[in-house]
Amino acid sequence: MTVPVPPLTPPYHVVVFTSLLRAPDPAYEAMAQRMVALARDAPGFLGMDSARGTDGLGITVSYWTDEAAIAAWKADTRHLAAQRLGNADWYASYSLHVARVERAYSGPRDTETPAS
Amino acid sequence: MTVPVPPLTPPYHVVVFTSLLRAPDPAYEAMAQRMVALARDAPGFLGMDSARGTDGLGITVSYWTDEAAIAAWKADTRHLAAQRLGNADWYASYSLHVARVERAYSGPRDTETPAS
Repeated sequence: MTVPVPPLTPPYHVVVFTSLLRAPDPAYEAMAQRMVALARDAPGFLGMDSARGTDGLGITVSYWTDEAAIAAWKADTRHLAAQRLGNADWYASYSLHVARVERAYSGPRDTETPAS
Repeated sequence: MTVPVPPLTPPYHVVVFTSLLRAPDPAYEAMAQRMVALARDAPGFLGMDSARGTDGLGITVSYWTDEAAIAAWKADTRHLAAQRLGNADWYASYSLHVARVERAYSGPRDTETPAS
């Protein structure tokens, strides 16, 4: 699942959310898609990518203009409700990293956009 | 696929590598596993997680002590050969973000390790 990230000049921020599901659950997938739809409209949201393998390990990376935008999305009441459900019902474990992007490139043709 | 990341105190670095495969290829998977085995022994490597969904979108996040360790791993000759093959044969597209981790936590029980 992807919300395309436009070409951006660092610095901006990335949130890396890694989770292991206890068991596959269509209700989880529906909630995850609702959260993507909400995040798209959140101030400062730039784009995201998400993948989950057959072993249940999933990684979602989302890109944001700054830390304040990430904090506001974390505190969104609809997102908070989803976080509570995730903790209670869905996740065997998860980790979250907030990081400041310093450089980025894409390919097959290398196109680097170094920090300004 | 995971190489467990021990509890760490920021700052450290994360590399987010997102790729879309042209087509499933067992040779790609074998190469990817060889690269993980090599990266584990690379100086400054801290851990990684990797997931690929049925749509062909894969995300690998690897954690490193610093930028110098990331640059050295990028320049490893065995890794360079794999990058060339990826560009030529395997990837429809990819993007890579290098970012400095500012804070991290994990759950279900929230355990935050803020930057020192």
